[in-house]
Amino acid sequence: MTDQSSSALLTDRYELTMLEGALHSGAAQRRTVFEMFARRLPESRRYGVVAGTGRFLEALADFRFDTAVLDYLSDAAVVDDRTVEWLADYRFTGDIWGYGEGESYFAGSPILVVEGGFAEAVVLETVALSIYNHDSAIASAASRMVRAAGGRPLIEMGSRRTHEMAAVAAARAAYICGFATSSNLEAGRRYGVPTAGTSAHSFTLLHDNERSAFAAQLEALGNGTTLLVDTYDVMRAVKTGIDLAGGELGAVRIDSGDLGVLASRVRALLDGYGATDTRIVVTGDLDEHSIQALAIAPVDGYGVGTSLVTGSGSPTASLVYKLVARSQSGEPGSPLSPVAKRSVGKPSKGGRKWPMRRLDGDGTATAELVYDHEPEPGPLDRPLLRKLVSRGEIVGAEPLSAARDRHERAMSELPVTAQQMSRGEPALPTRFEQRVSV
Amino acid sequence: MTDQSSSALLTDRYELTMLEGALHSGAAQRRTVFEMFARRLPESRRYGVVAGTGRFLEALADFRFDTAVLDYLSDAAVVDDRTVEWLADYRFTGDIWGYGEGESYFAGSPILVVEGGFAEAVVLETVALSIYNHDSAIASAASRMVRAAGGRPLIEMGSRRTHEMAAVAAARAAYICGFATSSNLEAGRRYGVPTAGTSAHSFTLLHDNERSAFAAQLEALGNGTTLLVDTYDVMRAVKTGIDLAGGELGAVRIDSGDLGVLASRVRALLDGYGATDTRIVVTGDLDEHSIQALAIAPVDGYGVGTSLVTGSGSPTASLVYKLVARSQSGEPGSPLSPVAKRSVGKPSKGGRKWPMRRLDGDGTATAELVYDHEPEPGPLDRPLLRKLVSRGEIVGAEPLSAARDRHERAMSELPVTAQQMSRGEPALPTRFEQRVSV
Repeated sequence: MTDQSSSALLTDRYELTMLEGALHSGAAQRRTVFEMFARRLPESRRYGVVAGTGRFLEALADFRFDTAVLDYLSDAAVVDDRTVEWLADYRFTGDIWGYGEGESYFAGSPILVVEGGFAEAVVLETVALSIYNHDSAIASAASRMVRAAGGRPLIEMGSRRTHEMAAVAAARAAYICGFATSSNLEAGRRYGVPTAGTSAHSFTLLHDNERSAFAAQLEALGNGTTLLVDTYDVMRAVKTGIDLAGGELGAVRIDSGDLGVLASRVRALLDGYGATDTRIVVTGDLDEHSIQALAIAPVDGYGVGTSLVTGSGSPTASLVYKLVARSQSGEPGSPLSPVAKRSVGKPSKGGRKWPMRRLDGDGTATAELVYDHEPEPGPLDRPLLRKLVSRGEIVGAEPLSAARDRHERAMSELPVTAQQMSRGEPALPTRFEQRVSV
Repeated sequence: MTDQSSSALLTDRYELTMLEGALHSGAAQRRTVFEMFARRLPESRRYGVVAGTGRFLEALADFRFDTAVLDYLSDAAVVDDRTVEWLADYRFTGDIWGYGEGESYFAGSPILVVEGGFAEAVVLETVALSIYNHDSAIASAASRMVRAAGGRPLIEMGSRRTHEMAAVAAARAAYICGFATSSNLEAGRRYGVPTAGTSAHSFTLLHDNERSAFAAQLEALGNGTTLLVDTYDVMRAVKTGIDLAGGELGAVRIDSGDLGVLASRVRALLDGYGATDTRIVVTGDLDEHSIQALAIAPVDGYGVGTSLVTGSGSPTASLVYKLVARSQSGEPGSPLSPVAKRSVGKPSKGGRKWPMRRLDGDGTATAELVYDHEPEPGPLDRPLLRKLVSRGEIVGAEPLSAARDRHERAMSELPVTAQQMSRGEPALPTRFEQRVSV
């Protein structure tokens, strides 16, 4: 179920049958440029957030066709022997550039650029899209929740509402965007995401009564723990908690009912007992809108589950991976020509692109410029592509904290309209800039 | 990214801190019954489909706290030493019953019943919910698409729109519900799901022109292949395909535009050339509604991506895992008492439950009966729980084909209202039946 040593079969069959066809026609060695971009932002939001870069680089390192994988491809007659032989030696040897992880993005701009032979670049399509589409969808929702929470900490707790491995990636993406903690232990072990969590209703129901459950929890986990107070009667449970732990009680969690009203009543009760430092955490089907609606309630933290791991209405980021240029032949030095399909309703812009963010004198972003040539950045321009892979070698790996820091910087640079929770136009326009022929 | 030998950390931190608290209070050894059920069906649909059973049993077998996992729990101070020691020996020793995989389900009825000590049962909560919530959401959407397609084959091709491991599980769930094939190679290798796929626009764009791309594909993959005909001009591409392969051309795929209109024109063109056996496959943001709308178009198959892997609007199944009964002490033979929380808006029914489907004389289901005691099934009743785990031993594993067969039987038994694509009432009412005291 979860064991997976190679990422090579996390791939659509047609990537390999295209490879077979291209080996047959001789076009497999043509030099190509593939770009990943979003046709649109999720749900008419103001910005998107790039996530998945680090996971994609891990998947690239694991993208190897070992004997077990090759045997499957032969036995199931997915491709012919020649293609199987080619895959046995597979190593990506080209170059990859991408937006830094945690960066904001806008429609049309390439967040990933893969340059290499057709054969080696096309087979990465599915796994690259899977990772970026999932992680960017979660990140794009998470970032809005962090904005809506206005500095109050957020706990990611959606593992149970999504695929068990997607849960780990979701916790990682949420952390990049400023979530304080996650309930997911594997995200803690694998990525160093701080974990949190104390108890559920079942713990209270297991014991003879609420008091003995609370006493057990306080004794085992210390007075700084968070007591879940809505199994029976919220106000009575809060009193029991204070009775047992006094003003040292860390926090209480309310998981149902009118959270704003209950938080106010609980705050008054806690303060009345002198428990002014005891925090109030609310959970229960929260999304960015309900978080924002609780801004005036005396809430000290939010736990978010379902809406986070399902991208709050946009569970996938609509990213595509398109061939935009290719050489006429497989000879070294053969020049790249732009290509694009003409399908109705899904037009693509041919040719390699270089994205750059333009800032004004106050450091506020004003546009996403996408050039058809490598531009000279002016003093207020910030080129957006980082080198991730150089001649097959991964050079762009970075600690998760770097992505988290980048996201914070990227947010501080966007115009205030980016903070709007309502649907509407992107916070930055994407402008395609063509080279002026002299 | 994808390597994962143990499933034990695919778990919320609070499962383990509750365990620590219960070891402390002595309640850890109390006998408990947890039930998994849906508070509601996804999106006011007529029925849901249980999926994930087989994957859950695999995860259960892998649920072991090995040295690396235990070291993390100690180093990160997630739980105390005593709890770490307890986890080192973890083996589930209790009993589990569940709906058969592929079965239809309705709100309130337990699709999984876990009986064992609190400690051993509570720690399974997160991974069980992750698997069932994801897989059942996908299956519930997939089943409707299969109904909408009315016998025409469906290809699952959504891997690129969801997390790379969720993609494998989605392909599996879709196959259970009657999809013919999947694009996902790992689903082929791991679960034996038949795979399909031929080429993308990039293959056509790679070559000097459409004709040379088609020729390469036909030579490599044979005339039975499917040509993608909408890179430039659909009608011209179809003519090129026929020109190269004649009436032996397997199929053409249309991925954009007004699919109904194009399919009719392409059919006429193909028939005009005598290519009456060449099939027409349509793809491009299809869901159950657009599939149904194409019923009168001359379409021979549908490829479905995004809407399948995102559960067509319901990416998670709202399943919960609740403590419904527990013993007063850890002594063998201590009787089970029903328990339930009283949280506002989220009421639960305490006590263990036994679900049964009632059929009429024609073999059509009329109700989902949920008993508070083990009932005597009448001649028209079908008990819904299968034994999955007996005293820790997995006894309910079965080949994927068994789930696929069960789904087909389950569909034939539901009343015709189940086939309605519109939102509305469940096809069967859930009725809670209490023991009559004599």
